[in-house]
Parts: sequence; structure tokens; C-alpha cells
Amino acid sequence: MRIDIITVLPELLKSPFEASILKRAINAGLVEVHFHNLRDYTTDNYKTIDDTQFGGGAGMVMMIEPIDKCIAALKKERKYDEVIYMTPDGETLKQGIANQLSLKENIIILCGHYKGVDQRVRDHFITREISIGDYVLSGGELGAAVLCDAVIRLIPGVLGNETSALTDSFQDNLLAPPIYTKPRDYKGWKVPELLFGGNLPEIEKWREEQAYLRTKERRPDLLND
Amino acid sequence: MRIDIITVLPELLKSPFEASILKRAINAGLVEVHFHNLRDYTTDNYKTIDDTQFGGGAGMVMMIEPIDKCIAALKKERKYDEVIYMTPDGETLKQGIANQLSLKENIIILCGHYKGVDQRVRDHFITREISIGDYVLSGGELGAAVLCDAVIRLIPGVLGNETSALTDSFQDNLLAPPIYTKPRDYKGWKVPELLFGGNLPEIEKWREEQAYLRTKERRPDLLND
Repeated sequence: MRIDIITVLPELLKSPFEASILKRAINAGLVEVHFHNLRDYTTDNYKTIDDTQFGGGAGMVMMIEPIDKCIAALKKERKYDEVIYMTPDGETLKQGIANQLSLKENIIILCGHYKGVDQRVRDHFITREISIGDYVLSGGELGAAVLCDAVIRLIPGVLGNETSALTDSFQDNLLAPPIYTKPRDYKGWKVPELLFGGNLPEIEKWREEQAYLRTKERRPDLLND
Repeated sequence: MRIDIITVLPELLKSPFEASILKRAINAGLVEVHFHNLRDYTTDNYKTIDDTQFGGGAGMVMMIEPIDKCIAALKKERKYDEVIYMTPDGETLKQGIANQLSLKENIIILCGHYKGVDQRVRDHFITREISIGDYVLSGGELGAAVLCDAVIRLIPGVLGNETSALTDSFQDNLLAPPIYTKPRDYKGWKVPELLFGGNLPEIEKWREEQAYLRTKERRPDLLND
């Protein structure tokens, strides 16, 4: 899989891709991630990528031309499955979308910044608009990092233990059950006895019950899906 | 405002706080963000912070002791309004929660990693559990960065233009309307004429209609809230 991220702030994205699971996936050749600085696709001396809104109003708007040029240059090199724009009014990211995207070959992710991009970019170049949640961030970069993390960890071989991702919250519309590790007793707070018996069917049953109870209490909406 | 982030991967968090709006807010003294490496609160030679699950199962669990020590050390120094745990089964982050948190003075954010933390941490130390969305990430670090960005940009003085955050998507349960900037005509794709007339009440009315239409089409659930 190859992911091309178009941004005005490539330096913001650096560290999340240089640590932990993303780094390991990149080093193992399971995914390629390339950053493209939008300013490299400008033609004026000031490397302008934004301008004021037509009609007035607070906040700058990202211009169509550098974005068009950058996307065109990438598309000349290979075919892309999706050109994704990170925006708070996009389709809300869910585990199912991450699952789907993890099967794609080449993806472009465009990070908005300031007030967002000129609407014509969205009308003519974008194939999918994704939001990571109902809140506003200062740019699309963190959203892109979140999307990449959610997708890349699902690529076979990325997680150490193959069963690991399938027992995560949301994969079966249930939240994960409580988990415990050593010590058995910490300042009088004890781990449930049942987990020590070695009775695996009983433990499995308890976990399923706990997952169901937690979901019912915290996220009854997931049970109706 | 002061935010203390407890993590096993402080290096992952570096660049998002060294760029753009977060950097500006920190440099201007409007917010302090401190990273605490959980391994500094271990007592064994291997700096162990996780262990296998009681009862069996894939994935490691973060142990209670280093987390207890780190939180206790911070609480000795000052009073905290919230001790937040980033977890996919927490309360889903919405703009309203970001608004609330932006008024707090001191916050601790604990990033989960691997399968998550020992349940006793959640039962005894955590005051609030937050998820940034219905998907699983490889750790709580990106979630913490997202939460910080959503909150910090709301602190007065952080955004250049005071009116900017209030016209964002979600602040009034409406998505933002389309925006346009130069050029008026790009490859035959034109900006709506109405935006050039200088008729501000008409432009305002058009934007409100567009925001309503976009919300109705994309996120009718927001209109029912």
C-alpha cells in the first residue's frame, strides 16, 4: 500500500510516522508513506497557497491551483483508488471504513488547513471526504495521521499478533471487556478471582458478558447497528 | 492552562506540538504541555510498563504501578481538574466537550497503548474516559494530540482571528458552507456570481442556506440534536 499525503505542514506529521507501529510497518516495507509540501507546487515567489474568501469572512481559503498541480503530478505516476480530503463535514470515520481502506493500493490524502479548501477542489478532485469526529482541529494533518494509523495497523503483518486487531473494540460492534495484569492485589484492589482458575470457557463467557454489559451501558447505539 | 500527558511514546507526540497553532499557543504562554515518560516511573531494570493479561489472550496490558506513581507525583505538585484516559470505549469527543475542557486549569491525559491499561487504573484514578471516534488506533498518543489540538485552539488568544472558531462546523450544529478564493474562473470552473456583488446580507443568507442544505444532506442527525 502507498499513501501520499498533501499538506502545508509536513513537519507536523513527522514524529507519528517515526515511532511505534507506523514506523515498523514502513520499515518492513508493508506501506509507503510520502509527504508532499503544497508550497512546492506554487508558482509565485511567496509560495502562496491560500487567499481570502470571496464574499468576505474570517479565515483563509486554500487555493485550487497548487492542489491541482500536486494531484496531477501524482496521478501521472500511478493510478489512485481514492483522493481523500480530511474535513470536519466529511463522512465520519468508523472502523468499517478503516477496514475497507486497508485493502486499497494507492491513496492520496489532502489535509485542509485554515478555513479549508476552495469548494472547486472538492467538486472536481476529491473522491471521498472523511472526518475523524465531530470536532474542529487546526488542520487536517492530525486527522490524516489518525486515518493512516487506523488503516495501516490493519494491513496483514503490521501487528505482531494476528489475532490482536480482531479482538479490538468495534470489530464486532462490542466494546472490549476489562483487562488485568500483575499484580493480583495492588493496595487492596484485587483482580477478579475467576481469571486465575484456568477455566478458559468460563473466562471467555465472563469476557463476553462484560463486553456486552459495557457496550449496553456506554454505547447502546452500537447494539442497535 | 496546563496539560500533562503520560505516555510510553513521548517521541511520537513531538512534532504535532512543535508546529502551527499548538506551537504558537505554547510559545505565547497560553498553554503549557508536558510529556511524562511512563518508563521513568518503573522500578525494575527493564523499565517494564506492561505484562500479559490475566486469564490469557492476545496483547499486553499496561500495569497499574508506574501509572499510579506518575499520577501521584503530578498530583503532589498541583490540583487537577480531570485525569483523562484516551480509550476507544470512552465517551465520544464532540465539540462541546472540547469547549468545556478549554475552560479547565490543569488536566492529565493518560495514553493507553497495547491492549490498554489494567482496569484498576480506570476504576481508581481516571475521572473521564474519552474516545476520539469509533475506530481503533495503535495507541492513545494520536488521540491525545487530537484532543489537545481541539481544546487548545479554543483558548482565547490562540487563533489569530477571534471570530474564526465560532464560525467553524459544529459550533452551531451546522456544517460550514462552501468557501471560495481566487481565481474567479479556474479551467472553466467558476465561483458563484453572488459572492462578488458585495451584497453582504444576501451573501450571509446564501451561506446560511448552504450550511443548512449541506447539514441536511450529510449529517441530518445534527439537526435533530
